[in-house]
Amino acid sequence: MTSAKPLRVGMVGYAFMGAAHSHAWRTAPRFFDLALEPQLTAVAGRNPVGVRAAAAKLGWASAETDWRRLIERDDIDLIDICTPGNTHAEIAIAALEAGKHVLCEKPLANSVEEAERMTAAAEAAAKRGVFSMCGFSYRRTPALALAKRFVEQGRLGTIRHVRAQYLQDWLSDENAPMTWRLDKSKSGSGSLGDIGAHSIDAAQWITGQKITGVSALLETFVTERPLAGDLVGLGGHGDVGSDTARGSVTVDDAAVFSARFDGGPIGVFEATRYALGRKNAMRLELNGTKGSLAFDFEEMNVLSFYDGAESPDAGFRRIFVTEPEHPYAGNWWPTGHGLGYEHGFTHQVVDLMTAIAEKRQPEPSFADALQVQQVLAAIEESAANSSHWQKV
Amino acid sequence: MTSAKPLRVGMVGYAFMGAAHSHAWRTAPRFFDLALEPQLTAVAGRNPVGVRAAAAKLGWASAETDWRRLIERDDIDLIDICTPGNTHAEIAIAALEAGKHVLCEKPLANSVEEAERMTAAAEAAAKRGVFSMCGFSYRRTPALALAKRFVEQGRLGTIRHVRAQYLQDWLSDENAPMTWRLDKSKSGSGSLGDIGAHSIDAAQWITGQKITGVSALLETFVTERPLAGDLVGLGGHGDVGSDTARGSVTVDDAAVFSARFDGGPIGVFEATRYALGRKNAMRLELNGTKGSLAFDFEEMNVLSFYDGAESPDAGFRRIFVTEPEHPYAGNWWPTGHGLGYEHGFTHQVVDLMTAIAEKRQPEPSFADALQVQQVLAAIEESAANSSHWQKV
Amino acid sequence: MTSAKPLRVGMVGYAFMGAAHSHAWRTAPRFFDLALEPQLTAVAGRNPVGVRAAAAKLGWASAETDWRRLIERDDIDLIDICTPGNTHAEIAIAALEAGKHVLCEKPLANSVEEAERMTAAAEAAAKRGVFSMCGFSYRRTPALALAKRFVEQGRLGTIRHVRAQYLQDWLSDENAPMTWRLDKSKSGSGSLGDIGAHSIDAAQWITGQKITGVSALLETFVTERPLAGDLVGLGGHGDVGSDTARGSVTVDDAAVFSARFDGGPIGVFEATRYALGRKNAMRLELNGTKGSLAFDFEEMNVLSFYDGAESPDAGFRRIFVTEPEHPYAGNWWPTGHGLGYEHGFTHQVVDLMTAIAEKRQPEPSFADALQVQQVLAAIEESAANSSHWQKV
Amino acid sequence: MTSAKPLRVGMVGYAFMGAAHSHAWRTAPRFFDLALEPQLTAVAGRNPVGVRAAAAKLGWASAETDWRRLIERDDIDLIDICTPGNTHAEIAIAALEAGKHVLCEKPLANSVEEAERMTAAAEAAAKRGVFSMCGFSYRRTPALALAKRFVEQGRLGTIRHVRAQYLQDWLSDENAPMTWRLDKSKSGSGSLGDIGAHSIDAAQWITGQKITGVSALLETFVTERPLAGDLVGLGGHGDVGSDTARGSVTVDDAAVFSARFDGGPIGVFEATRYALGRKNAMRLELNGTKGSLAFDFEEMNVLSFYDGAESPDAGFRRIFVTEPEHPYAGNWWPTGHGLGYEHGFTHQVVDLMTAIAEKRQPEPSFADALQVQQVLAAIEESAANSSHWQKV
Repeated sequence: MTSAKPLRVGMVGYAFMGAAHSHAWRTAPRFFDLALEPQLTAVAGRNPVGVRAAAAKLGWASAETDWRRLIERDDIDLIDICTPGNTHAEIAIAALEAGKHVLCEKPLANSVEEAERMTAAAEAAAKRGVFSMCGFSYRRTPALALAKRFVEQGRLGTIRHVRAQYLQDWLSDENAPMTWRLDKSKSGSGSLGDIGAHSIDAAQWITGQKITGVSALLETFVTERPLAGDLVGLGGHGDVGSDTARGSVTVDDAAVFSARFDGGPIGVFEATRYALGRKNAMRLELNGTKGSLAFDFEEMNVLSFYDGAESPDAGFRRIFVTEPEHPYAGNWWPTGHGLGYEHGFTHQVVDLMTAIAEKRQPEPSFADALQVQQVLAAIEESAANSSHWQKV
Repeated sequence: MTSAKPLRVGMVGYAFMGAAHSHAWRTAPRFFDLALEPQLTAVAGRNPVGVRAAAAKLGWASAETDWRRLIERDDIDLIDICTPGNTHAEIAIAALEAGKHVLCEKPLANSVEEAERMTAAAEAAAKRGVFSMCGFSYRRTPALALAKRFVEQGRLGTIRHVRAQYLQDWLSDENAPMTWRLDKSKSGSGSLGDIGAHSIDAAQWITGQKITGVSALLETFVTERPLAGDLVGLGGHGDVGSDTARGSVTVDDAAVFSARFDGGPIGVFEATRYALGRKNAMRLELNGTKGSLAFDFEEMNVLSFYDGAESPDAGFRRIFVTEPEHPYAGNWWPTGHGLGYEHGFTHQVVDLMTAIAEKRQPEPSFADALQVQQVLAAIEESAANSSHWQKV
Repeated sequence: MTSAKPLRVGMVGYAFMGAAHSHAWRTAPRFFDLALEPQLTAVAGRNPVGVRAAAAKLGWASAETDWRRLIERDDIDLIDICTPGNTHAEIAIAALEAGKHVLCEKPLANSVEEAERMTAAAEAAAKRGVFSMCGFSYRRTPALALAKRFVEQGRLGTIRHVRAQYLQDWLSDENAPMTWRLDKSKSGSGSLGDIGAHSIDAAQWITGQKITGVSALLETFVTERPLAGDLVGLGGHGDVGSDTARGSVTVDDAAVFSARFDGGPIGVFEATRYALGRKNAMRLELNGTKGSLAFDFEEMNVLSFYDGAESPDAGFRRIFVTEPEHPYAGNWWPTGHGLGYEHGFTHQVVDLMTAIAEKRQPEPSFADALQVQQVLAAIEESAANSSHWQKV
Repeated sequence: MTSAKPLRVGMVGYAFMGAAHSHAWRTAPRFFDLALEPQLTAVAGRNPVGVRAAAAKLGWASAETDWRRLIERDDIDLIDICTPGNTHAEIAIAALEAGKHVLCEKPLANSVEEAERMTAAAEAAAKRGVFSMCGFSYRRTPALALAKRFVEQGRLGTIRHVRAQYLQDWLSDENAPMTWRLDKSKSGSGSLGDIGAHSIDAAQWITGQKITGVSALLETFVTERPLAGDLVGLGGHGDVGSDTARGSVTVDDAAVFSARFDGGPIGVFEATRYALGRKNAMRLELNGTKGSLAFDFEEMNVLSFYDGAESPDAGFRRIFVTEPEHPYAGNWWPTGHGLGYEHGFTHQVVDLMTAIAEKRQPEPSFADALQVQQVLAAIEESAANSSHWQKV
């Protein structure tokens, strides 16, 4: 590790994603051999007290109250954007133009237009050796990376069905408080962009195919929610009195859409935060002519695989994705000792640092994320047009 | 049982459904106390050798080669229709007009127009004390009947999500042979009417709500299949040579649709016979404000229930639906000794005979089945119209 | 079926097992092609009213109040013994000596001495073409029969571990009533003989190995239980008042033992009726050098198989044992349409009739069942001797 | 965190456990509010190159080649022992006598005699405010900590059954190499002490009861294994040639025992590294008069709970132990975002530091671990004495 070149990181935002990213930067070099050594140089946030406390708690060497300061500082090589979507474009473009690598949380932006500008900036920067990546962290779940490997190995044959659900329930309670995630001006969309975007990216990445058209239905079940003080962050599960002031929910609570992929399969997607009892059920199933794969993030260390060639004694095989040969797994614990949610973020910065060190484009690029944004836009277009089929 | 009045049954068709129905008529009085005692009087089929063999094998006292003969016979009280959908209307209407009760396999018919005529005949007959019922047998799965009870008890609160899949894989092999189920002139539709109809009926029955509109996508993956001799029956899984003559598949292989229900929830449905590895995964999940329910026919004796009131120690509870207090279960084995596929058919004739004996309309009525047919038609209409929303 | 020779059956006892056996005799010829055609000729029981009602309900042509009458009757070819264990020896020996085939419920007897006499009678009768079989019906569960096939095919390699549990909970309630199953003079033992015997037979049959020694612990948690009228039957789950008369439980409530098999593996067994929440969890797991198998009767249509050769992508594969190639399954429904508890009994009489028609010894023979009895005796011996190792 | 007093740690050993402990010390203050701030001051190991590399990799400020140096150093407050069991007694006693707190991996020692001396040293040290703890890290799995809470709340009623398995398969391959874990002089015992000890500790801790007697069977399936270079560490899964030198396995491969607990339940335990397909199946099930609990570390974020009061609609409830109200979980991610293997170690040092800061005895104490050692000794005694019952 002594020979590794430092990579000095400045992070913007320090709530849920900020904590996950901090852990990732801190932990990556302890389990992976890296050509770059991350340094937690500075964190930025508007609240002076909050950002200093976060710096101490999360292990950042300094704190700034304006993200522009991070970009001005000479001792920072990479800007890690963990803020709501409405701020992504401005920060990312400024950072790239200032010659700093960028890791930007998903969804890339709140509109296709923003995402296009970000992608243009990213492609211009890449020519100068400055790289960017969008944080679709589920790609770094070992089981989903193994799923992609299986598809690439042809173990599924021709894929016919894509079945994706992302089910949560933290809004099921009508009194769960208002949060920036429910304010379209900040988050861009609701379940669609927050969790549906993960399903879209994962499905396209694993199949190696793009969605060409969609038909969609969006629904908002609860249109007003109690305001509860500082709502930056995760959304919480607090109880509130009935006389609490209420804010308008301006995003979708649930998104349902069918899709076609350019390689033939049809897809059905559902994203919701109202599936009572489903906590983080990011599920994906692929059915091919030779095999099928199934995944549920609630059992994140398991990939289920059905090999049609084993018929009549075939069956879904629960692969515990903790073998040394499995993606990422060999750097952690012995077989059977599973990983948790935050490991995806650690793998994400490992992959990002490796690409930067090798001077090649990390994936998913901003262009990849722009295409997801275009799918999101097509979904909203279809939903607004009585579910009529909408080309992407 | 000695006091039970005989109910003399004539069955039309003796393939897969015929075997299931025969078992039901034979078995029902052995486990249930009934006011009527079913007698397996006659079975009809066009092939003289086949129908006589079937009568002997399945336990019917006589055989006919024309269903019209069953209707003419004085010693038959009820006609049980187990033939492909294109024959339902003619047989059912003739039977009802002849004063015979009717049990008709689902889907009720191959078109709304046929279903409407059948329903008119059924309603006219009912006034004369002649009853009819459509064979949506999944209603008689104890776990689904328990699901309905939970909804009626208010244990789910307001339902927000209906999530229904019916996944099979017997057509996944491109060389699986042509069958009447793939011929639109006989079956009316493909996965949609064969299995999707079950999901629609179950979802509406359990929620007590009707679908008001849909947006749909239909797909046929394999448009030609080998012809293989007598294809009446189940569809088989045989191997065939590459020089086999081929027939055109004229129905959908897969159906995907979103829906709205009149009580508020949105639904997402999928029916396919290409989900490799899923054998008979008739799945239904309901998410409400207070509780959630999940079911998969591949574990047909289990109903999963999530009670939000138990939070934070809530979790999906696997109820083994074999307690004496559970629907139908008390008539069988001790707790924990599960039932199989055919029990639904036994329960179906139990319920039918009970309604006939009590001179009340059995459920689902032809009118209920007509409404399902209208949903099927709306789905096809939407699919033909670029998935545009279609009112039912 | 017209060419099948009749096999005229007389059944003794008509409670839980009697209902299951009746269904089996009635159903077998409808789904299987048999050389013999079973006829439900007569049922015997001491209570005149009860036995006549049972005959009508279960479909027997006549009723007798003394089992000896069944043996005297010329129109009976086979005696089916469904009574408590203390009566098995007398009935079975008398039947065999009278030239009647015998199907006897398990455990074969209440002592090794009885079982030895029964086995001697069986072997003498077999020389005269009169056959007998013990009703270890779990052998006829398709998934367990498939497990045996896998072992015979060498797919497990050398077996190292046998792990068997039979967990029920119907005695968990201290007020569950007294029943003959808790009276040693009738049942011989408690959980050990009632359910543990199934585990022992299944483990030995599937592995093809015999248990050579055991170390055991037996426990009775509740020593007195309310008496509740006619306790013949299953044991029930009724509520009783606190002033109810109570009877002494004279059998084990739970049995735990380790074992060695003659082929090398070590085994651990547990049988109990106090595992609250486990309804009929008859579980078996085998770990070999090449593969492993796991089964739980609560998911009776599934066999889980782990193929070590698939490493590092190996995983327990959930085989849905409903394919035409699977044992028994092809005679029933299409793939994925599972069977229930009673099917094992139907398969049992199918196998029994096939062996009788082919004039060969059915399995498990009385000699096989005697050996299980010897294992049961060794377990009781070890438990009585501070768990000291006891050879079988 | 700025007000936290430093706790300067010196760690002995840097293989599997060393990596896990390093991660724990590094991560604990980032997610928990602690009165002490851990500092990774020094790591010790005999190999100068290896220990320096480990220090750099794992984040320790300095390296020592003799553990005695750690004890001599004034800038170290706590000794963390991550070496094989044969070294525990010497290191721990020396550390305690030098006034340093001790965290010692399990099993506490390789003999009762050693464990007694360690416990005496621990109790003497505690009087001087110097504390010690044994690393039964599974106590810190949120789901098992929740299990204990449920037992304490009386939700199980009187416990009747304890069912514990710890199944791994990394020795299933006969060519898996020799390691110190298979050498009795270093590890004390095999599966018994390595993994069975975890089951014993967890079962006693969660039930709040002690094992009073045991009957046991120990087995070694493979008595010689290839030697493969530096075998310190985990045991690996490497392939070796057939001409490789071989070493003798001097420990048990599998341990099976029954037990009685002082509060009434009977227990059955199994520990093995030959259960092909089971990777880290540390399972525990408790059946009580009111409720049951089940856990499997292969789904470490889930606790299954059966509440008998919900009968007849009861069922095992899969509690996803990630709610803010659950033990440890509130300090991590939102509901539904599961934890991994290493989190138990982080929680362990959190609890240890909290106890030290509050000047009270951490749990499990050396006395607790000595009692586990006494159970291990009774098991070996029973196994050596033909499984005869052995009091603890």
